[in-house]
Amino acid sequence: MTRKLFELCGTDPARVFSPFCWRTRMALAHKRLQAETIPWRFTEKSAIATYSSDKVPVLIDGDKSVADSWAIANYLEETYPDRPSLFGGEGGRAMGRMLNWWGDTTVIAGIFPMIVADIHKVLGPEDQAYFRSSREPRFGKTLEQVSAGRDQAVEDFRKALMPMRMTLRTQSYLGGETPNYADYIVFGPFQWARATSSFKLLKEDDPIYAWRERLLDAFGGMARTSPGFPV
Amino acid sequence: MTRKLFELCGTDPARVFSPFCWRTRMALAHKRLQAETIPWRFTEKSAIATYSSDKVPVLIDGDKSVADSWAIANYLEETYPDRPSLFGGEGGRAMGRMLNWWGDTTVIAGIFPMIVADIHKVLGPEDQAYFRSSREPRFGKTLEQVSAGRDQAVEDFRKALMPMRMTLRTQSYLGGETPNYADYIVFGPFQWARATSSFKLLKEDDPIYAWRERLLDAFGGMARTSPGFPV
Repeated sequence: MTRKLFELCGTDPARVFSPFCWRTRMALAHKRLQAETIPWRFTEKSAIATYSSDKVPVLIDGDKSVADSWAIANYLEETYPDRPSLFGGEGGRAMGRMLNWWGDTTVIAGIFPMIVADIHKVLGPEDQAYFRSSREPRFGKTLEQVSAGRDQAVEDFRKALMPMRMTLRTQSYLGGETPNYADYIVFGPFQWARATSSFKLLKEDDPIYAWRERLLDAFGGMARTSPGFPV
Repeated sequence: MTRKLFELCGTDPARVFSPFCWRTRMALAHKRLQAETIPWRFTEKSAIATYSSDKVPVLIDGDKSVADSWAIANYLEETYPDRPSLFGGEGGRAMGRMLNWWGDTTVIAGIFPMIVADIHKVLGPEDQAYFRSSREPRFGKTLEQVSAGRDQAVEDFRKALMPMRMTLRTQSYLGGETPNYADYIVFGPFQWARATSSFKLLKEDDPIYAWRERLLDAFGGMARTSPGFPV
């Protein structure tokens, strides 16, 4: 296959757990495009240096390469316009840019402290050392100290999801009656958590819980059957 | 003119100051549609009861009436499809629903405590009494006590705008290279503040400040020339 995707994995190469990689995985599935996974770990910077990136996902599509999940989504939309649209028009692409930032600053940044100690557990020894030594200075605490506050943090996290919760009261997906990239922006972080942690982020009566269930079942249950913790 | 719009006003009928009315004003201008303002005040519930609403904006368009700014935007997009699009496609309409909730819960709810005592000052005596007696129980404080904390509150408010700020680093408007309803969703609340308060919500080096300047100048300076406090 000429299409390949570098994806962040744990010791189990099937355990893809980057929120950004999951955005891209869902986007590829939405476009009905196959890509062969190249498992990648934090300490394998040299493997992607040739693509001018030190982070995944990196998509190789024939003789082209694209790094960064937002850039990949735009690349796919432009390159495969006859496949199902990721944005539903130019307005959606522009607004999607803001939802992507909302996803980064509210969803990813909200989830990260709650699962950071759990992420450490799914890594191999070399990546564990890298992860601890690079993340602990950011927080100014040990990973375990950061995650220890999660019972309170999850309450704030759930409140911060209010705009999404309200939206899902009148439509099935952020993209409308069917999912689009707006949904994958937020689903990616949830799947990152699911792949690494058994911590319960959502209450079962939350409309976002039901939304997540629907996306776990999308594309033949691709996300549900990927290694993770059912929550 | 058969198109009329009930809009919330102060003692000066030209001082339109509802965030929701400003969303609709900008949407009408975007569609190049005229509407005659019917000045409306908080205590004039009976004037709009016939339209099954106790809030403005209410749009009267020939023999139809539509209440609620989001419903009006959708009505305009459906009824005037040949005019400039408010959403830029179905994806934008769906994602706009979430940005509208983000605007309500983050921007309107963030601004309100900071300007609530100033709003009171632009109202006539009867509306002042209504406003104080209805809003103070919501906060459990006097209006003046609520606004007294605004020097700290504005720091939190500016932080909460981060997804928007990041978006405006790579595109001129939330709607892309030209504004659309996503922009009016957020501009409406800023214009509500401008119409009622001299409190400085944004720093001048904030990309959101420059974005607001551009929208103040849009449609022949419609928003800039409306009664308000230059900030």
